[in-house]
Amino acid sequence: MALGEFDLIQKYFTRPTRQAVLGIGDDCALLQPTPGMQWAISSDMLVEGRHFLATVPPERLGHKALAVNLSDLAACGAKPVAFTLALALPRVDETFLAGLAQGLFALADTHGIELVGGDTTAGPLNLCITVFGDLPPGQALRRDGARPGDALWVSHPVGGGIGDARLALEAFRGRIALSGDDFEAVRRAMELPQPRVALGLGLRGVASAAIDLSDGLAGDLAHVLRRSGVGAVIDVHTLPVSPVLARQPLAVQRDCALAGGDDYELLFTAPANAEARVLAAAAAAGVAVRRIGWIDTGTGLRLQDSQGTAAGLAPLGFDHFTG
Amino acid sequence: MALGEFDLIQKYFTRPTRQAVLGIGDDCALLQPTPGMQWAISSDMLVEGRHFLATVPPERLGHKALAVNLSDLAACGAKPVAFTLALALPRVDETFLAGLAQGLFALADTHGIELVGGDTTAGPLNLCITVFGDLPPGQALRRDGARPGDALWVSHPVGGGIGDARLALEAFRGRIALSGDDFEAVRRAMELPQPRVALGLGLRGVASAAIDLSDGLAGDLAHVLRRSGVGAVIDVHTLPVSPVLARQPLAVQRDCALAGGDDYELLFTAPANAEARVLAAAAAAGVAVRRIGWIDTGTGLRLQDSQGTAAGLAPLGFDHFTG
Repeated sequence: MALGEFDLIQKYFTRPTRQAVLGIGDDCALLQPTPGMQWAISSDMLVEGRHFLATVPPERLGHKALAVNLSDLAACGAKPVAFTLALALPRVDETFLAGLAQGLFALADTHGIELVGGDTTAGPLNLCITVFGDLPPGQALRRDGARPGDALWVSHPVGGGIGDARLALEAFRGRIALSGDDFEAVRRAMELPQPRVALGLGLRGVASAAIDLSDGLAGDLAHVLRRSGVGAVIDVHTLPVSPVLARQPLAVQRDCALAGGDDYELLFTAPANAEARVLAAAAAAGVAVRRIGWIDTGTGLRLQDSQGTAAGLAPLGFDHFTG
Repeated sequence: MALGEFDLIQKYFTRPTRQAVLGIGDDCALLQPTPGMQWAISSDMLVEGRHFLATVPPERLGHKALAVNLSDLAACGAKPVAFTLALALPRVDETFLAGLAQGLFALADTHGIELVGGDTTAGPLNLCITVFGDLPPGQALRRDGARPGDALWVSHPVGGGIGDARLALEAFRGRIALSGDDFEAVRRAMELPQPRVALGLGLRGVASAAIDLSDGLAGDLAHVLRRSGVGAVIDVHTLPVSPVLARQPLAVQRDCALAGGDDYELLFTAPANAEARVLAAAAAAGVAVRRIGWIDTGTGLRLQDSQGTAAGLAPLGFDHFTG
């Protein structure tokens, strides 16, 4: 007999509550905010074929669904507290659910947060997570704080770079051939992004603006530039790329790094004199950061190569409706 | 040219923020909780064919997606504050989006709440809303507070009843024939449920337990009985039914009222001596309430007819995975 919705939630998603006043199993979850703190809230929906492929192992899908949401909290400098999960499933597949829950809770435990509620329903596969974090008033990293003269930074894995997730996607699509080891490495980048929560916390009071990289560096940066009313120059030769991506033609490297999407790294600006504090925050968070350009009074993004010559703009980051 | 995700959000879903410190357009929304209050959070996902039919006008879909979430806040006695919307759309259909936004914001304005964030993506039609409300600590209406001797109540529209939404569904399915006027009346019940927020607020300190009716009265009551460790008896002849449903055979009336689903009324318990306060709360909220039974030390739900004779239990409320 098929498990009902209630049994599913009970079996795979109910764990003892910790911080929550009331967790899963009532009409609402109840949380007691820490006095004086603001709440940061973000919601992301993941759809098969758009945000993940049918080939993703369920553990990794569970990880990624939460990771992309935590990445939004990281970009605001908020400390994660709790999350809800709404899940549409085409059929009850217990192997899938067990794996999904395992990946989800492993990442939740890493960040000390708990699932407090949600919904399950039959329907085309869809995962919608809403995350809640907190932070002191006035300390949020926002998109509108970049100022001319600020340095432009991007985080990346130690020994790695940005753009690997897009390289993996192109390999899955059969447009690029990779060796088995290289494919596994970039596939991990695509399927197991690490939200930069610790870095976001460390950049409070240091960064002037921040955004997480979800749609591609150029497209995401455009949001910061528009909201801050500034322009930016990127030295494209300084973009951090992994050894695997570095073996690709230069055009592929730049397309993947500038317009790849699915990086879930932090792109941020900071006053030029804050370099030591940026590097200290990154070191404390165990993540690498690279200075890739600067903010100016211009309009939009301009690219230049190692000779300081203007370079053509790579294709813009894919947009979920025009890509 | 197709509108991109950013433009879509800008055009249809961005309005000036009111209570929020920071609304749509950054990685997270920022909210400042009212000092001392608890947060109530609920998330519901709506899928075509499961929670609404393809024939629903977009204005009504926008209304219903928010209404079913507000209904969860109502069942906790929480005051709605804000919500997020994540939306998967098979294609950009501006007529649909304009209607959806209109229905959504009309209900949001009725309750003085605002959309603070969310997500849009391409994919099979799916709406996931997460709502936030607040309430003083210890005052939440929960599922686990029903006590033997409590009266069992259900809310319903003035001049109407419960079960109309299910009757409409059966008419859509062609299993029941209704006149044009009757069909329109029950279709409104299905497509435009009114969340009982004011009643929920009025029942703080009065009701001992509450739940909103989404899956059918019998099934939803079972959650209250299980969590409270009690049993219940319902006098089935006291179930409120609308004039339209009252024209159906008795078996249809009872199936729709007891196991219909999609009512979004409040089912609640209150001490026997609280009747005057229950009626006063309902009158203040402009909604009808009916006493339909009581809580006892038994197990599960038992039904009895007007002679006090045990009646057969109607089919249980549909479950989203076994229905």
